[in-house]
Amino acid sequence: MATEEQIRESLDEVLVPGAMRSLVKLNLVRDIVLSDEKATVTLASAALNPQTQDWLKAKVAEVITGLDGIKEAEINFVEASTKELNDIRNVVAIMSGKGGVGKSLMTSLTALSLARRGYEVGILDADITGPSIPRMFGIVGRPAGSETGIMPALSKVGIEIMSINLLLPHEDDAVIWRGPLIGKVITQFWEDVLWGKLDYLLVDLPPGTADAPLTVMQTLPLSGIIITFTPQELAAMVVRKAVQMAQKMNIPIKGVVENMSYFILPDSGKRIELFGSSKAQKMAIDAGAPLLGQFPVDPEIAKLCDDGNIERYDSEELNSFADAFLKAM
Amino acid sequence: MATEEQIRESLDEVLVPGAMRSLVKLNLVRDIVLSDEKATVTLASAALNPQTQDWLKAKVAEVITGLDGIKEAEINFVEASTKELNDIRNVVAIMSGKGGVGKSLMTSLTALSLARRGYEVGILDADITGPSIPRMFGIVGRPAGSETGIMPALSKVGIEIMSINLLLPHEDDAVIWRGPLIGKVITQFWEDVLWGKLDYLLVDLPPGTADAPLTVMQTLPLSGIIITFTPQELAAMVVRKAVQMAQKMNIPIKGVVENMSYFILPDSGKRIELFGSSKAQKMAIDAGAPLLGQFPVDPEIAKLCDDGNIERYDSEELNSFADAFLKAM
Repeated sequence: MATEEQIRESLDEVLVPGAMRSLVKLNLVRDIVLSDEKATVTLASAALNPQTQDWLKAKVAEVITGLDGIKEAEINFVEASTKELNDIRNVVAIMSGKGGVGKSLMTSLTALSLARRGYEVGILDADITGPSIPRMFGIVGRPAGSETGIMPALSKVGIEIMSINLLLPHEDDAVIWRGPLIGKVITQFWEDVLWGKLDYLLVDLPPGTADAPLTVMQTLPLSGIIITFTPQELAAMVVRKAVQMAQKMNIPIKGVVENMSYFILPDSGKRIELFGSSKAQKMAIDAGAPLLGQFPVDPEIAKLCDDGNIERYDSEELNSFADAFLKAM
Repeated sequence: MATEEQIRESLDEVLVPGAMRSLVKLNLVRDIVLSDEKATVTLASAALNPQTQDWLKAKVAEVITGLDGIKEAEINFVEASTKELNDIRNVVAIMSGKGGVGKSLMTSLTALSLARRGYEVGILDADITGPSIPRMFGIVGRPAGSETGIMPALSKVGIEIMSINLLLPHEDDAVIWRGPLIGKVITQFWEDVLWGKLDYLLVDLPPGTADAPLTVMQTLPLSGIIITFTPQELAAMVVRKAVQMAQKMNIPIKGVVENMSYFILPDSGKRIELFGSSKAQKMAIDAGAPLLGQFPVDPEIAKLCDDGNIERYDSEELNSFADAFLKAM
């Protein structure tokens, strides 16, 4: 006769349409009761439209009555907010203050390296006026959902993603909004998206130290911040403003990472400094946090991002960055 | 006997302390009356503190009584707002939507190339949370001024500059403000700074399409916008949002300029595309505006920016860009 644990395991194989993550990973399984040969399963209905609920009812009944000794299955839905269903261990913001230093790239690479090591990872794209994440992962199409919540999109390797660009009719559409509206959307991405169970939710912040970063720091329970920068002193100056903001808001900086650190000449293999000598050691001291890695300027990365294939990227640098990130957390 | 015109010419050689631009260029000369051997000069007192007014009174009297046939000089001050004194022919915003594509660099290079051709140029740094302009020009120290106005800083070649970083105790200090306050500062930079007479005021916009660009487009009488981008398709997508914003706000896009277009390998002189193939032609079509130029990735530029010596930069590209810019305007 099947146990409650076995029922739960079987539900971990039922993928929710539109999300393509399982009922268990989305934290929709609220209760399992076994009595005699009958199993009663209670599911949360958040972010599920009526058709999806019907489909799940039939699918779950089919899966459970296929288990040893279970003859009858009763499937009920209860209301629960996405906010109470979300069970996220670490929320980490990727910040730089300066634009174009590679926040979105670092967010993507961090997510990728964690997912490869078996962690459940999501990305909340808080850059509402300049969202880059869906493009890098090659994600198009509107997220599923209902009046009670939005399903995140899922990348090829299984990273959950929510970005304003998934909700716009065209990816080039401008979002011409003032701060309060932008703050509201970020809050919605946090509260109304069914993230489910995650080890890490990474937040890709926009440049600057104004509305969006302020809303993220005041609204989300951040475990820490990763600071991204490039070797240019001019960029480093603006990045130090971000460091100061994090410190003022009492959010621990868990590490710093340098992007566009160097460039390997394709002909000679010689390493040159395109944007000046590395600021890595100095930035680590200024931020009071470890240096987690240094990434080169690499035309291959630019191409992978443009083609929506960032998940194909792999390198020695990424591997040791992941080690350092996990150690810092 | 000296004419009114000669008096005006002599006043064009009196530099206002703290601004280092002349009384005439700052548009502070309100009236000149000649009767017999007496000249009466009326100056506006905006942005001048009492000591500066006293110094100017003595200096102007000295200069005028040195002219042929003038025995007596009377110098009066009248109140006038900086807003009514400012006489600016063209206000042009440099925009990209995306951060880190080189807006500030393009703003600086445009200013530089126009100043070299004899135009009077100013830069209003509207990037309040990530200001780069003072650093590039090597400008430190607080601007002069009084209760009635702020004097812009002056670069080595004579470009007027106003940036929040000139008003902060330390250049790394974070400006952690929400949109309304940022909008207010930008409006002050427009209304309360004594720009005087300028051919071009260039506005360096922050990334995004939110509060700051919106305030600039709604408050300043823009003649047009220059769109900056890099070859990466990901960046181009975000830049198209900026193009759409300009179009929605009915502000003409005067031209587009590609930065980080290519890189010349130092060993072989071979030209490679670090961030993908040029998007210049496509962007010009999308924006419905001419391509004004293409600039390479150049470690020398990065160094000049970091050292505050951007004004030493010169190149064939910059020269033809200036031609194209003036033609487009």
